[in-house]
Amino acid sequence: MASGSDDDPRIGDISEGAVLRAILARTAPAAHAVLGPGDDAAVITAPSRSVVATADTLVEGPDFRLAWSTGYDLGWKSAAVNLSDIAAMGAVPTALLVSLAVPAGTRLSFVEAMADGFRECCAQLAPGCSVVGGDLTVSELLMIAVTALGDLGGRSAVTRAGARPGDVVALAGDLGVAAAGLGLLFARFRDGATPVPVDRSALDAVQQRALDRQLRPVPPLALGPIAADGGATAMMDVSDGLALDGSRMADASGVTIALSGSALDALAFGGDRGRALGGGEDHGLLATFAPGEVPDGFTPIGQVLTRGDAPVLVDGEPVAESGWDPYRDWDHAR
Amino acid sequence: MASGSDDDPRIGDISEGAVLRAILARTAPAAHAVLGPGDDAAVITAPSRSVVATADTLVEGPDFRLAWSTGYDLGWKSAAVNLSDIAAMGAVPTALLVSLAVPAGTRLSFVEAMADGFRECCAQLAPGCSVVGGDLTVSELLMIAVTALGDLGGRSAVTRAGARPGDVVALAGDLGVAAAGLGLLFARFRDGATPVPVDRSALDAVQQRALDRQLRPVPPLALGPIAADGGATAMMDVSDGLALDGSRMADASGVTIALSGSALDALAFGGDRGRALGGGEDHGLLATFAPGEVPDGFTPIGQVLTRGDAPVLVDGEPVAESGWDPYRDWDHAR
Repeated sequence: MASGSDDDPRIGDISEGAVLRAILARTAPAAHAVLGPGDDAAVITAPSRSVVATADTLVEGPDFRLAWSTGYDLGWKSAAVNLSDIAAMGAVPTALLVSLAVPAGTRLSFVEAMADGFRECCAQLAPGCSVVGGDLTVSELLMIAVTALGDLGGRSAVTRAGARPGDVVALAGDLGVAAAGLGLLFARFRDGATPVPVDRSALDAVQQRALDRQLRPVPPLALGPIAADGGATAMMDVSDGLALDGSRMADASGVTIALSGSALDALAFGGDRGRALGGGEDHGLLATFAPGEVPDGFTPIGQVLTRGDAPVLVDGEPVAESGWDPYRDWDHAR
Repeated sequence: MASGSDDDPRIGDISEGAVLRAILARTAPAAHAVLGPGDDAAVITAPSRSVVATADTLVEGPDFRLAWSTGYDLGWKSAAVNLSDIAAMGAVPTALLVSLAVPAGTRLSFVEAMADGFRECCAQLAPGCSVVGGDLTVSELLMIAVTALGDLGGRSAVTRAGARPGDVVALAGDLGVAAAGLGLLFARFRDGATPVPVDRSALDAVQQRALDRQLRPVPPLALGPIAADGGATAMMDVSDGLALDGSRMADASGVTIALSGSALDALAFGGDRGRALGGGEDHGLLATFAPGEVPDGFTPIGQVLTRGDAPVLVDGEPVAESGWDPYRDWDHAR
């Protein structure tokens, strides 16, 4: 949003139609769309006669800072966090709708980069899924509201409520990586208030990976339907940290989730168990399976017990349900 | 957002879970939901193996002012403008997803009133449809991003692109009412900048109706599927004014839309033809039909011609494609 030229007009200086044309030129066709963008609404096939739908929003300030995230990063992340919720039901993502509220001074190239981020995230994580519609508004604040749709392909949706005592608790995806990346960003506040851009070249390879995963998460989407086919009894996307999201699954299922400290330490980024439990935004898949039925790609990290006093235990001890509120409760990230 | 007490906490002072529980307590179950709010995603039935999807956002400032709109008004209007786009395809609305970005100082009662507005709008205009999911974020600016889903029930989607020379052009719904209401609001800017609340009791009945329709539009949703069943060749929601939206249909269909001035004068609120052509937000349905096939509820207002120089004519004269940009281009509203 900083640089620009006459070749790169501000959103407020060109027509909505011109902005939409530029976005659509960078949008891939959706394999499941009968009718794509441009009419009052899109039409998407729902072969299994049901549609899975979720919505999640990124807001400038509480969810990201423009000193740290590029347009591409924001497009990617907005797509990924929504696609992950579709996969967590056992479904395959089919379509995104994107409502953009953009300050008038934003350069067109920034919005084009967002469109690239949406397209590439779908291409890499959910082939066939694409943006089929949306909305563009001028606003004082950048806000990206996304709805993702998906198809269950005849599977039953896997909710949070089906975990049974005796099941194995398993995890797919990162654990504490995105929080480590956020820690690197929050170390770059000048005077504790002004975010300072990160010189990526000054980071080592491990730090670079953490930063990249924070800005452009890579949830294990393909494992969602695989887990459903493999008999997952409960499943959810870990967006707010394993402790809090685990307690949500435990409460919904009426069970206690007992985690193994050594299993967590083995998976935790940098071996940091506290960050693994409290840090969010990894968008891994937490699922439960009958013993012996954990599919490849998931790592056992505990077991489901009859409900006790605490929703989540680690090595038998209750865990505080420390929430993840990025850009506010960022203590967890350090 | 003004009044409040300890019984009416600010959103920033209570947990996200508490806010969501209050909203859900005011949300009706969706007839088409297999799985409602509370999991990673909702699951909605799609009996006809396809789903119609649209997204539209209201942003504080460009789209509304809190001096004029109550929480109930905003919930209603956010629902109505999205439901209208579903109906305009010939589909029946099944579900809404609502992403709310709310300032921390907002009172819980305001958000509860929004939930009431969503529920009542669906109950009155689209029975069976309800909010099945969404997202809540704290933001400096109030923003309501809605996605609406619908089912075609075996109908083919009616796009903007199917109007054929010889078809009758017809309209259902209001024409210029919402713009007249906006005019009443914009007459209440103190010093040209500060919106002043409207004393509804000081308005006459006609003015009150215009104000109510601006704040809580009542699009003729049920006529969308009826028009599709009745053979509509093209259809769209008139949100940006008849001149601009008519030109969009004309361009998409490769035709000219020739309107009758006397027909417009008869339908136009207050007989104001200019406002009828330029004023938006009525969310009527503009549709084309073969001669003699115009269903009850639609009024003929013109005919489709082979494409000429201008997309829209009134009594043979080209019409400027005056756009509708509420709260910016509000000259049209006076």
